[in-house]
Amino acid sequence: MQSCFVKCIMSTIIHSNADILNMETRYRAAFINTLSGFKSANLIATIDEQGQTNCAVFNSVVHIGAHPPLLGFICRPDSVDRHTLENILQTSYYTINHVNKSIYQQAHKTSARYDKETSEFEAVGLTEQWIEDFSAPFVKQSRIQLGMELREHHILTINNTELIIGEIVYINVKDDVVNEDGYVAIEHANSLAISSLDTYHETALLSHLSYAKPDQAVKEITLRKK
Amino acid sequence: MQSCFVKCIMSTIIHSNADILNMETRYRAAFINTLSGFKSANLIATIDEQGQTNCAVFNSVVHIGAHPPLLGFICRPDSVDRHTLENILQTSYYTINHVNKSIYQQAHKTSARYDKETSEFEAVGLTEQWIEDFSAPFVKQSRIQLGMELREHHILTINNTELIIGEIVYINVKDDVVNEDGYVAIEHANSLAISSLDTYHETALLSHLSYAKPDQAVKEITLRKK
Repeated sequence: MQSCFVKCIMSTIIHSNADILNMETRYRAAFINTLSGFKSANLIATIDEQGQTNCAVFNSVVHIGAHPPLLGFICRPDSVDRHTLENILQTSYYTINHVNKSIYQQAHKTSARYDKETSEFEAVGLTEQWIEDFSAPFVKQSRIQLGMELREHHILTINNTELIIGEIVYINVKDDVVNEDGYVAIEHANSLAISSLDTYHETALLSHLSYAKPDQAVKEITLRKK
Repeated sequence: MQSCFVKCIMSTIIHSNADILNMETRYRAAFINTLSGFKSANLIATIDEQGQTNCAVFNSVVHIGAHPPLLGFICRPDSVDRHTLENILQTSYYTINHVNKSIYQQAHKTSARYDKETSEFEAVGLTEQWIEDFSAPFVKQSRIQLGMELREHHILTINNTELIIGEIVYINVKDDVVNEDGYVAIEHANSLAISSLDTYHETALLSHLSYAKPDQAVKEITLRKK
């Protein structure tokens, strides 16, 4: 198997690594970024030691564990993510805020390369929300807000990206989207999904399925409010 | 900030870590698993050195980089993921196959705890697809299929999960869902999104936005086929 060889057989296009190297940078980024499937849409908000706030959209937040409650995300130190990463390493605290239908254009605008001295909150028209005993700002317009504390940090040496793992220490979610089995209907909070880098999707519930067991058929379960 | 304290302010419920510890295991898993937002829906297929195939649904596949093209996913060694992880560490090759509307129930069924001797392909009714020069099986029913080669492996010490990073070395995607800017319309390939552990969603395009720049408004872009 040539690991340096990428084929698209059904499209009968063959890409070698040289072809990929020669793709226009944004074309390649859009193409490869779609291949993981749908992504979460979150705004990560931070503050530095000088009191400068920062807010940036991320599509790489991933569940790491439920107990303790842990989320990870991927950072590129050489990109606009760098202020987010610098601030988290300085202060250990940050917030993760779901992007919903009412703020996705502002959320996307945070991916522009603003100076460190510019707060994206102001630049794109989002509102800082502060709560007692938590040192990072939340995004007021977000309907699912998480307060995070840094727990673990890995450098992914193959491309110099970084995995930041934090524990969920604060949850702000409306009770009316929590179901009796613990499932939070993020669709009813108007949370969005992202594909690639710049494409935002609403969702429609297809099915809430039963816990799978080898000797039983998978059943569709009706969601019930608490 | 007490990191051992989780509040839900809008729902006026307060959870301490003790409360979370006392949650019924599946309730806690469902609740915490929703908080990262929407997730990718993929089947990861492998084969061990004895020729036993394995196929398991994962909702943690995440984009790591476009150049080289890298994807990561999270594994719990003590769960049903373990056969997938063992096989990848043995052979270095695996496939990532998008879950679409026609196979989501079979995909979900692969999360049941089958014996190592049972191939989930057979057990749930999916079809192995083999291609020349690649040693792991693809899922024939999937419309976006990726051949992967192991590149990097991290233990996340905080909860003993593992991050597996592979390079995309083979892409099988229908040309008719690729747009002129490189964006692959995975929605038109009927790829699904997952929330929590067991809930499957279709998507509807909201907007394909322009590359964000500080001094320009974000514009909506019309997707054009190549």
